Amino acid sequence: MDRLGSHEIIVMFLALGTLLASARLLGETARKLGLPSVAGEILAGVLLGPTVLGTLAPGSSAFLFPSNGVNAVVLHGFTTLAIALFLLVAGMEIDLSSVWRQGRAAITVGLAGVFFPFSMGFLAAWFMPEILGMEAGANHPVFSLFIATALSITALPVIAKVLMDLNLYRSDLGMIIIAAAALGDLIGWTIFATILGMIDQYPAGENVKVHHIVLLTTGSVLVILTVGRRIIGGILVWVQERTSWPGGVLGYALSLGLFGAALTEWIGIHAIFGAFLVGIAIGDSPHLKERTRSVISEFISFIFAPLFFACIGLRVNFAVHFDFILVLLLFSLTVAGKLTGCSLGARWSGLPRRESLAIGSGMVAQGTMGIILGIEAFHYGVIGEKVFVAVVVVSLATSMVCGPAMQRILRRTGTCSFTDYLSGDAPVHHLKSTSRDDAIRELVGVLCASSFLDAREVEKAVLAREETMHTGVGNGVAVPHARLPALITPLVCLGLSREGIDFDAPDGEPAQIILLILTPIHDDCAQLEILADSARIFSKKEIRNRAMEVTSYSDFLNLVEEARKESRKPGKSRQG
Amino acid sequence: MDRLGSHEIIVMFLALGTLLASARLLGETARKLGLPSVAGEILAGVLLGPTVLGTLAPGSSAFLFPSNGVNAVVLHGFTTLAIALFLLVAGMEIDLSSVWRQGRAAITVGLAGVFFPFSMGFLAAWFMPEILGMEAGANHPVFSLFIATALSITALPVIAKVLMDLNLYRSDLGMIIIAAAALGDLIGWTIFATILGMIDQYPAGENVKVHHIVLLTTGSVLVILTVGRRIIGGILVWVQERTSWPGGVLGYALSLGLFGAALTEWIGIHAIFGAFLVGIAIGDSPHLKERTRSVISEFISFIFAPLFFACIGLRVNFAVHFDFILVLLLFSLTVAGKLTGCSLGARWSGLPRRESLAIGSGMVAQGTMGIILGIEAFHYGVIGEKVFVAVVVVSLATSMVCGPAMQRILRRTGTCSFTDYLSGDAPVHHLKSTSRDDAIRELVGVLCASSFLDAREVEKAVLAREETMHTGVGNGVAVPHARLPALITPLVCLGLSREGIDFDAPDGEPAQIILLILTPIHDDCAQLEILADSARIFSKKEIRNRAMEVTSYSDFLNLVEEARKESRKPGKSRQG
Repeated sequence: MDRLGSHEIIVMFLALGTLLASARLLGETARKLGLPSVAGEILAGVLLGPTVLGTLAPGSSAFLFPSNGVNAVVLHGFTTLAIALFLLVAGMEIDLSSVWRQGRAAITVGLAGVFFPFSMGFLAAWFMPEILGMEAGANHPVFSLFIATALSITALPVIAKVLMDLNLYRSDLGMIIIAAAALGDLIGWTIFATILGMIDQYPAGENVKVHHIVLLTTGSVLVILTVGRRIIGGILVWVQERTSWPGGVLGYALSLGLFGAALTEWIGIHAIFGAFLVGIAIGDSPHLKERTRSVISEFISFIFAPLFFACIGLRVNFAVHFDFILVLLLFSLTVAGKLTGCSLGARWSGLPRRESLAIGSGMVAQGTMGIILGIEAFHYGVIGEKVFVAVVVVSLATSMVCGPAMQRILRRTGTCSFTDYLSGDAPVHHLKSTSRDDAIRELVGVLCASSFLDAREVEKAVLAREETMHTGVGNGVAVPHARLPALITPLVCLGLSREGIDFDAPDGEPAQIILLILTPIHDDCAQLEILADSARIFSKKEIRNRAMEVTSYSDFLNLVEEARKESRKPGKSRQG
Repeated sequence: MDRLGSHEIIVMFLALGTLLASARLLGETARKLGLPSVAGEILAGVLLGPTVLGTLAPGSSAFLFPSNGVNAVVLHGFTTLAIALFLLVAGMEIDLSSVWRQGRAAITVGLAGVFFPFSMGFLAAWFMPEILGMEAGANHPVFSLFIATALSITALPVIAKVLMDLNLYRSDLGMIIIAAAALGDLIGWTIFATILGMIDQYPAGENVKVHHIVLLTTGSVLVILTVGRRIIGGILVWVQERTSWPGGVLGYALSLGLFGAALTEWIGIHAIFGAFLVGIAIGDSPHLKERTRSVISEFISFIFAPLFFACIGLRVNFAVHFDFILVLLLFSLTVAGKLTGCSLGARWSGLPRRESLAIGSGMVAQGTMGIILGIEAFHYGVIGEKVFVAVVVVSLATSMVCGPAMQRILRRTGTCSFTDYLSGDAPVHHLKSTSRDDAIRELVGVLCASSFLDAREVEKAVLAREETMHTGVGNGVAVPHARLPALITPLVCLGLSREGIDFDAPDGEPAQIILLILTPIHDDCAQLEILADSARIFSKKEIRNRAMEVTSYSDFLNLVEEARKESRKPGKSRQG
């Protein structure tokens, strides 16, 4: 019993190999078809589990994935580890400080985006539990709380991906969405951890001491995100300076995540919540480089996440327990709750109607977060097979609709090209500065020399924007920008730096092409369109290389014009 | 039994977190002290296991790492997976085709480097089993075979690391060592798999059908490395083209490794051997980029390997079972066997005395391979605690001495600087070519225009050398080179390429500084010293950036002179 025998080793390797290969293959296929890869990964488990293989060839499914015995335990160990690490990464993607820096808009959208769907979900589950699939004998308040939480959770990674695809990730709109989703996730997971704590420590029927659990949960959130965050950040500096990269930081982040998981499991509020909190604390450190964040995230999303999501499909027969009405009902509730809550929140904080709607539809995606919530609730007996299947399907469906919906709402006019606003007097400026702030000052100086703008004001606005979130978009391009009240038309200035300047891009590449973009404070579409347009133009390496060599204004315009024509050719670009 | 309970989840996360954190910390510390990081990783386990924590606080050691129950099974599952993946990576580092391309020298050194220590080990264990620590009741022939194999195994990763530290990795000498070690590893592991197969299928006392096992082992080697390799390489091309990088290749390589492990475990010759063979088959594909290889290897060496090696220390009380005489004996046998075998092999294939000795001392390192052999033999009961501890200690000790020994033997005269041989007529050539072969042709043309050399002959030699192993050394530097019979003094030519040319460097960086190095065929030290000297000069980013800007011969010489002075300052460089 204390070691695996030869037969168990064979089954373990075969099971892991089969899961990994099929999850990666179907995940890639889904991505090719424009679907989230998690849809393919879950499908792999559905094919290998009771739904398909278990029905067609029960013997081989039971051989590979036995539900009892040593192999079941080992597989459970792997998936428990995988999901804790996945939540660690999900936490690292949350930039809590940017929520505060974003100010009122993000907080209003985040709170309204939790409050509305949560209330709708709770009331619906409270007054019509049977229609929403509550099983006989289940704990009614706990079930209602779960439905409420499931409706209000948001999948930050899905939303980030959609914003990147639309070239809106670094825009103001994108940052509000990301910050609001981060805040919503933190609240949602805190509520969920409280629910699990209730069930775990006080099985149904006993007198639930709610205040005890709420105290423990909020206490660990506060401790880890204040004192814990400082200590973690302090040690991180030491680790990044003194150890080999990326081995040092990887080991540090992963072992911290494991300790966090052990801690929260020990105080009774589920292991994955601890990993998630530690992830936020690490990710929030100003010393964590974007590049390090993406290495850790790659590391986990390519191997651990596919394994975990494939295992989800192994648990339940998705065909037998699929209930179309329930799926439709949950889907409508989710969309209605999120769309209303977030759009209203955005309107209240003063955003225009079109952007508010876009924010609301972006926040609809539940994605991986909804799925994880579902599997844990299922495991703890809060929901039955039917609701579990419905939650998984709705989570995937909401992730798929949010991208196209945002795109449609923000539909480009295509008339706003960044070259229209290039400052004619200093079109191609070779930067002397080597640091980010100096480069911004230099470009602002160049731009303001030929306009009525006050250089110091502009500088302050652009640097403040940079503080909120860096504007390196990768591929050696950076787009420092600001909205200014004094402007009536956008202004763009191009700076080139042969050595490259660190704008903390996700790919770690120093920026060689730096576009300073100033837009009027009320012209909301201009910034979005200019950012998207410039990202599209410089997405090709060839264009970037040639841009580095241009010497005159007309050369540069010709180059951009050529790139634009190229991208309009049919079949050449997804945007075209 | 089919799932982990809350207590077991806490223990699992705590145990993994503690192992990972301490292994990484001590591993980094070891690296800082100039020791192999695996020494620190094993020490972490020694501290946490029976040797230290188990003696001082038996309760906490037993709590974290129980030897029975669900947690022991889960931990065994993790380490089994970790070691299979580690061997997969070790296999990927073996470039079998380069063994054949290297020709006689590599094969002679490789075979002699196995044959000598193997015979010495076998004879020693056969005639004095008690002195070498054989336990009463152990199978004498199997024990002798194990000692023989342990003595003849070589740690390719350790040797590669030492060669890189000495700036000799891409030299002819380095390539012979690497190829010979690869061949030796393949032979050593095949023998070891045969031994394990014997024990596994026919417990001691029964009639061992040796020919059956030998047939199975060699059969799987042949099938995987011929037909398997073709199929694996073919699919790899498809995967690299069609899937996202690095997720696609990572998933492909890992799942293949898992299937290979399942296959060989099933036919009865140990899981890790299958992973190793699959690794060789993948690594041998000409379509696998160096960059992909290093991503996969990072992925596994930073998390899985530390966990595995730390677990080794958990198994045995290293203080109680340490036997100084046995360690000394095994160490002497290893060094004597390897040094004699490989040096003789090198002499037979016509290499000069000094290089032969250097090859012999480089091949002495047993490193991780010796340790893995030891833990598996211990697990199968081939050896007892005493021999196991001795094998681990000797493996580490041989890894530590091989670097300094090689350095001492090849001690630099310091008189050979590459600038002495720069062709004066075209010192700084800005390359027009964008492909590797064109760039080599262009540089050869420039160099030959001002010498008596036949450009076509030189070109052929340099391109042939490039075929054997690419000469991108990373950091944007490449050193295409060849030894020519017609030369009496070395010739060096510098080419700069602003766009960079792909020389398949381990870090994926295109080469901007390209040094073509031609040396006389008999002047063996010249090539080594010029390669090492140029690598040293261009190891600093600042020097490389400034080199890209030089316009004249004298500018360049001044720059190199300055870099040389800088590196001679005390405390500035490890070489200085």
